[in-house]
Amino acid sequence: MKTYPPTIYFNLAFLLLGILVTSNNLYAQTRSEGPWWPNKIWGANDQSGGSNWITPEKVLKACSLVKEGKVFDLGHMYERGMPMPGQRTYNIFIPSFPTYAPTGKDQVVFNDEYVTSEIGQVGTQFDGPGHVGRRIKMADSSMANIFYNGYNGDEMKNPYGLQKLGVENVKPIITRGILIDLAKYKGVITLPENYEITVEDVRNTLAIQGMKESDIEPGDALLFNLGWYKLWPDKKTVSGKPAYAGQALIDWIISMKPSMIGSDAILDAAPDFLLHENVILKNGIFNLEYMNFETLPAVNDKYIFLFIFTPLRLKGATGSPGRPLAVF
Amino acid sequence: MKTYPPTIYFNLAFLLLGILVTSNNLYAQTRSEGPWWPNKIWGANDQSGGSNWITPEKVLKACSLVKEGKVFDLGHMYERGMPMPGQRTYNIFIPSFPTYAPTGKDQVVFNDEYVTSEIGQVGTQFDGPGHVGRRIKMADSSMANIFYNGYNGDEMKNPYGLQKLGVENVKPIITRGILIDLAKYKGVITLPENYEITVEDVRNTLAIQGMKESDIEPGDALLFNLGWYKLWPDKKTVSGKPAYAGQALIDWIISMKPSMIGSDAILDAAPDFLLHENVILKNGIFNLEYMNFETLPAVNDKYIFLFIFTPLRLKGATGSPGRPLAVF
Amino acid sequence: MKTYPPTIYFNLAFLLLGILVTSNNLYAQTRSEGPWWPNKIWGANDQSGGSNWITPEKVLKACSLVKEGKVFDLGHMYERGMPMPGQRTYNIFIPSFPTYAPTGKDQVVFNDEYVTSEIGQVGTQFDGPGHVGRRIKMADSSMANIFYNGYNGDEMKNPYGLQKLGVENVKPIITRGILIDLAKYKGVITLPENYEITVEDVRNTLAIQGMKESDIEPGDALLFNLGWYKLWPDKKTVSGKPAYAGQALIDWIISMKPSMIGSDAILDAAPDFLLHENVILKNGIFNLEYMNFETLPAVNDKYIFLFIFTPLRLKGATGSPGRPLAVF
Amino acid sequence: MKTYPPTIYFNLAFLLLGILVTSNNLYAQTRSEGPWWPNKIWGANDQSGGSNWITPEKVLKACSLVKEGKVFDLGHMYERGMPMPGQRTYNIFIPSFPTYAPTGKDQVVFNDEYVTSEIGQVGTQFDGPGHVGRRIKMADSSMANIFYNGYNGDEMKNPYGLQKLGVENVKPIITRGILIDLAKYKGVITLPENYEITVEDVRNTLAIQGMKESDIEPGDALLFNLGWYKLWPDKKTVSGKPAYAGQALIDWIISMKPSMIGSDAILDAAPDFLLHENVILKNGIFNLEYMNFETLPAVNDKYIFLFIFTPLRLKGATGSPGRPLAVF
Repeated sequence: MKTYPPTIYFNLAFLLLGILVTSNNLYAQTRSEGPWWPNKIWGANDQSGGSNWITPEKVLKACSLVKEGKVFDLGHMYERGMPMPGQRTYNIFIPSFPTYAPTGKDQVVFNDEYVTSEIGQVGTQFDGPGHVGRRIKMADSSMANIFYNGYNGDEMKNPYGLQKLGVENVKPIITRGILIDLAKYKGVITLPENYEITVEDVRNTLAIQGMKESDIEPGDALLFNLGWYKLWPDKKTVSGKPAYAGQALIDWIISMKPSMIGSDAILDAAPDFLLHENVILKNGIFNLEYMNFETLPAVNDKYIFLFIFTPLRLKGATGSPGRPLAVF
Repeated sequence: MKTYPPTIYFNLAFLLLGILVTSNNLYAQTRSEGPWWPNKIWGANDQSGGSNWITPEKVLKACSLVKEGKVFDLGHMYERGMPMPGQRTYNIFIPSFPTYAPTGKDQVVFNDEYVTSEIGQVGTQFDGPGHVGRRIKMADSSMANIFYNGYNGDEMKNPYGLQKLGVENVKPIITRGILIDLAKYKGVITLPENYEITVEDVRNTLAIQGMKESDIEPGDALLFNLGWYKLWPDKKTVSGKPAYAGQALIDWIISMKPSMIGSDAILDAAPDFLLHENVILKNGIFNLEYMNFETLPAVNDKYIFLFIFTPLRLKGATGSPGRPLAVF
Repeated sequence: MKTYPPTIYFNLAFLLLGILVTSNNLYAQTRSEGPWWPNKIWGANDQSGGSNWITPEKVLKACSLVKEGKVFDLGHMYERGMPMPGQRTYNIFIPSFPTYAPTGKDQVVFNDEYVTSEIGQVGTQFDGPGHVGRRIKMADSSMANIFYNGYNGDEMKNPYGLQKLGVENVKPIITRGILIDLAKYKGVITLPENYEITVEDVRNTLAIQGMKESDIEPGDALLFNLGWYKLWPDKKTVSGKPAYAGQALIDWIISMKPSMIGSDAILDAAPDFLLHENVILKNGIFNLEYMNFETLPAVNDKYIFLFIFTPLRLKGATGSPGRPLAVF
Repeated sequence: MKTYPPTIYFNLAFLLLGILVTSNNLYAQTRSEGPWWPNKIWGANDQSGGSNWITPEKVLKACSLVKEGKVFDLGHMYERGMPMPGQRTYNIFIPSFPTYAPTGKDQVVFNDEYVTSEIGQVGTQFDGPGHVGRRIKMADSSMANIFYNGYNGDEMKNPYGLQKLGVENVKPIITRGILIDLAKYKGVITLPENYEITVEDVRNTLAIQGMKESDIEPGDALLFNLGWYKLWPDKKTVSGKPAYAGQALIDWIISMKPSMIGSDAILDAAPDFLLHENVILKNGIFNLEYMNFETLPAVNDKYIFLFIFTPLRLKGATGSPGRPLAVF
């Protein structure tokens, strides 16, 4: 029997062990050194993401855009019967009518409403930092759900609202809004279903809007008009395959360092949801979905305006309803 | 048998009939001629009340106040356990965690929240046009609940949200905010329970703030600091007897023609709720309750600022949650 | 000028007054003497209606029917997506999963569910005494909503559940169930849409079941199989025009003095809802809707059995979900 | 350099590998061979647990106990303000009043209720098969939540109700109820807080009730009166430390093979919840909590009766409300 030098056996043993161990190490993640969330501009404990871009200077600059004082609603009404993704629901009631019996010398009566809903994830909805994560294998082989800035599902999880990354961490959005009117550029009422929006589309749109890429500054809110608001309240707006940002456009968006993005659909495609993964999860750039651009002037040659969106401070919520506004 | 001239009988008959009829006429009301809602600046069909004061000029003027770009939250966080009047409730859940199973090549996961609540009437809350009414006797002897601008409960009533005077009718509030820091003027942490705030209190407060009554313009948002936000989340803030506006101050408020008012309590007193009746119901000046002034600079010699409050367009709701902001 | 005798004027005056007064009197109603609720077997304060028929003797007799111990479910499962009338909803969630973090030495975990729904008025549903009323003109000309046994909406009304006629007043139903298998008699899978079921239909059905009308005793639960359970969960079962009881059958049902009735639809027709009005409202015979007869043996020559239905004691609710059972 | 025979290195390598592997094997679990759920009477796919004991013979025997036809409610009313463990809630509303506008020739009106609640886990509540589990380490080192009969949380988990072990799997409980009146035996109004109930207590109670242990048969419902229903609605009933079953009594209960147990508290003690773990999780004997024995006759020398409890078939729910009944 031929004998091998002992080191061979050592090597074999350690090779096998190494496979076990490094197969885990390949996926090793910790809050402080995770390889897959590249953007830690705001520090390891940050939960506010892109809203950090909204500095006083930014607010000041945005407010100085107001020349006419005209205000436009950029969201849908929240109402029973509006289209909602999946099995989400929205109900509103008036408990009794009037809710309270007459009181006092003038017989004053009061009404309440009662709402039951995935309220931050229905209608015009702002995806906050706790909305999207990834299921990954951790260093110890366990599976974990990892969210923005490396927060682990285990530290976030609570039946009664998230303990970390709740939408209450997002600062008020008072910034420059940049409308990127893709539908107008394409000369269509709505971009086609399943259409991948390219960086060239965006650049061309900026060009016909008389803008250059360099006009976009960190902290701006980039708002993409796909024309899909015109289909609302067709169920297709939330369950179909709207036009979406491909990987190249996703990278471009991230490079622009916006405080948030918005559109009249979700700007993303199932089943991979690359925009949610890269823009929200990895970079903390939050996404306002199902906006409504119909009240913007039909002919409008101004694409930069004061944009206001104030996410509700619903402690532990994954998103927020709201009333986005453009002020010219 | 003595006979009376026939006219006596005619008179008697018509007198009796007249009593029946005029006893009703005393309370006769119609949308077009009700004697008790004196303020119809905005026309018989108006449902937007004081928010109509927010003209483009007003918005422009308010935005031009911004000199530093500093933003302050003026509302409480919405969370389980916060104090609520009466039997109102606020619940938030994360359905499962993560709500949706991993999807796509990178195993992306998503969370939703689910909220059940009198959401527009809990926490920092904006009383909209359908929140307060009066039960009165109508011309035909029937009893009716009459709301802002004479809208009748019968035309508003619907189990699934009001059909008239829903909060969606209120325009976005982008205006000048005027802080009237009563607690500071009085040199107290909180105004005493049950204290009736007088017009003199307000005038003196303005004076020490270096302001005159004539600095207040139609459409401003008048925000009264009672110091009561410091008691939050003590249940007493919603069930006790906070300082309130008496009739004289109510009249003064109306005369100022603000778009809305706000305070860190309700500024009103049970059981008559004269402020609700006169300010909201009769004049359509909406009321933002349970604000939080703690983030305003401790020492702040600026009492006029850009004030932003964007009521959610919850169709048919009586109020709205929100995130009021001061921008300096 | 011709003069009329004075009495003419008196008469005229009183005639006119009389018209005013008696026009009201024609509709005069009070709890104690209302002409339109003919059946006050159980006294002026009764809120339990037909369930009063369930005496100990009745329970004893019903239990003695059990010869085999076989139990059959006669209701549908409550689940998301089940058909519901109008805008009713049914949601169930698991808040987080598990809802509670591991506890104790063995790391025990717990789950809760959370339900939001018109729970007593969805799926298999029992219409209790507060579900149906009539709007009528009262003696004083006011309009009132009058319910079972003359209870007035004004004394029932409360935002947080009815103050009178809540379903908690209904006694447990442990009685003889009588299946009246109309579909079998007609030789159809389902009775046709809009078909008016006649007394003759019922008598003929009883006959082919080997029964006589006199076999029915006060307090029995009369259960009508229309075959419509086979259409469940087609939305048509709740929004279409199922076969219904006409006035003659309604009178027959009332004459039988059942504790309750049931069927696999609602046994009634819009817009008049004569069965609801006459059977529930006027006679307190409650109605179990949307039953499911599929688990009853395909070939079953026994139509009388122990029937069990235990409405939940949801204080102030208008109805109840439940799990009706047949025991042979 | 001394050389070792090659086998040493092989051994070392495999030893190390073995440690890695077997450290997992120690906790290895599969649905088919889990060491810690000893009771698989009903087969590997069973989701009905103790309710399987309710055979036709059992039903027949239970019904034959009825001699008087008297029915007693053994549960509390469900109402706003009732005590609830932890942060659970219960709300009921009447949407508008009446909910629906008058319809048809007789102006018929209808009311709905709307409930939001952990409805199967509030008030008198039946803990179903998906309510309690254990967090354990699996063969592959991952942590899993394991429930009755070895079902894994991963196969049960769904935001909208459990996919396995929902309460809809529990068969109707129509069986013999055995009241074990511990409070009466002890001669107290309520058993003391934190008191561990022993097997001897139960045997002595049976004895003074004129019963022997052998009178208990498989499938009976064992109902323990601790007197704690008398404290209801004191918050202490759900948050305090009621008398509980110790390990010996837990073993005794399991040995009796009841279909379910019940009491006027939870019969268990935090933080280990041994009864939940052993009785529900390991043996599928479900637990009806917070019963109400006040309507049982004050002096009652009959402790065996027909017991009826029909869990609602709420698909995917962890528990059920209900209306437990004793029939004599």
